Amino acid sequence: MGDNKEKTTIVLFSGELDKAIAAFIIANGAAAYDHEVTIFMTFWGLNVLRKDQKISVKKGFLERIFGKMMPRGAEKLGISKMNFGGMGPKMIKHVMKKHNALSLPQLIELAQEQGVKLIACTMTMDLLGLQQEELLDGIEYAGVAAYLGDAADAKVNLFI
Amino acid sequence: MGDNKEKTTIVLFSGELDKAIAAFIIANGAAAYDHEVTIFMTFWGLNVLRKDQKISVKKGFLERIFGKMMPRGAEKLGISKMNFGGMGPKMIKHVMKKHNALSLPQLIELAQEQGVKLIACTMTMDLLGLQQEELLDGIEYAGVAAYLGDAADAKVNLFI
Amino acid sequence: MGDNKEKTTIVLFSGELDKAIAAFIIANGAAAYDHEVTIFMTFWGLNVLRKDQKISVKKGFLERIFGKMMPRGAEKLGISKMNFGGMGPKMIKHVMKKHNALSLPQLIELAQEQGVKLIACTMTMDLLGLQQEELLDGIEYAGVAAYLGDAADAKVNLFI
Repeated sequence: MGDNKEKTTIVLFSGELDKAIAAFIIANGAAAYDHEVTIFMTFWGLNVLRKDQKISVKKGFLERIFGKMMPRGAEKLGISKMNFGGMGPKMIKHVMKKHNALSLPQLIELAQEQGVKLIACTMTMDLLGLQQEELLDGIEYAGVAAYLGDAADAKVNLFI
Repeated sequence: MGDNKEKTTIVLFSGELDKAIAAFIIANGAAAYDHEVTIFMTFWGLNVLRKDQKISVKKGFLERIFGKMMPRGAEKLGISKMNFGGMGPKMIKHVMKKHNALSLPQLIELAQEQGVKLIACTMTMDLLGLQQEELLDGIEYAGVAAYLGDAADAKVNLFI
Repeated sequence: MGDNKEKTTIVLFSGELDKAIAAFIIANGAAAYDHEVTIFMTFWGLNVLRKDQKISVKKGFLERIFGKMMPRGAEKLGISKMNFGGMGPKMIKHVMKKHNALSLPQLIELAQEQGVKLIACTMTMDLLGLQQEELLDGIEYAGVAAYLGDAADAKVNLFI
């Protein structure tokens, strides 16, 4: 964690497959160039970090509804265009596999191996009623202040 | 307005409630850290700055149509996902209130109190036929050149 | 290409008329201020660079489908809001013309004249089956590494 490393931060606000893939490709590329990389997952972007199985936790009514309506993890996301009731994401995944491109779950795993810091926005978790047990292991929990601390030191800051 | 202050700029292009909230949370956070913050509202983002009452101004036919079709201010915005004919924004507002999170109008007020510079893009105003009387008080009016001037001095530059 | 020039980079991920116009207005503004500007066109953003006529190239089945479904160039793009089956883009174009604003094809031409570097993302071309013959002349072809190289030197980096 040297202070001389280049830094890159990404706010991942969107919960769509194509945007999440773009975010993780940029993050992994920057990490490969030895940047210190942070992805701050907020709002719908938090869905990317959800485990794909149903986790039994105590929730209020509205939080339960949100939990059911929102996609459960990287495998379930829709895309931002040409979704066609789920056909679009299938086509994208098919074509990525055919070209030996990493899938989103693989991109996330690679990011974690490369030390990309994945931060779940605690304010969003609170609002949408998401709990730590429902999210992937190995992530950090923080608010917008932590993001801003990293961003003020970084040259490349993107909002996706 | 010291030259040594960190600077943050946001282009708010989107006119959706969730994205506008994200923009103002980041802006208010950066201002709390003593950054000089600019939000440049352009295209649909300009709707965030509209007053919620109908303002009587002279307009051409197309400008009148745009004025009617676009949401009139922060209270009227839809969200980027799960809009469900207006139910989505209601749920979001309900859940924010329940958690004592600031509403968008409160976030805008806080931003203005903290000295966040809100700039309405004059080119967009011209195109969509929006006039100064229709927008909130205390904002500035400028073009993309003013934004670029601020952005070139800033470390954190986001497009939302 | 002096090293002392300010640098600006834009990732154009979105393939919508309004977002593409915003990207090129910012890019042209920055170029006018003597910034070195790169637009990295990836995912749907690549459609902005397509030639508007059908180009006869050999393609697989899925690539042919993608090619048919996606808009063929700057004149055919939809907008991100109020699309109304094509009426929205017509209204926007009409109102831009009325106000003597440059159209997207004109903005692209101006960007090329000003030396804005337009890079087509080769990974996306591969995935969507787009070939160099189908894209505008005078653009460069590279991957995310080239983008990151430019972004790490730039102060203004936007994802649109």
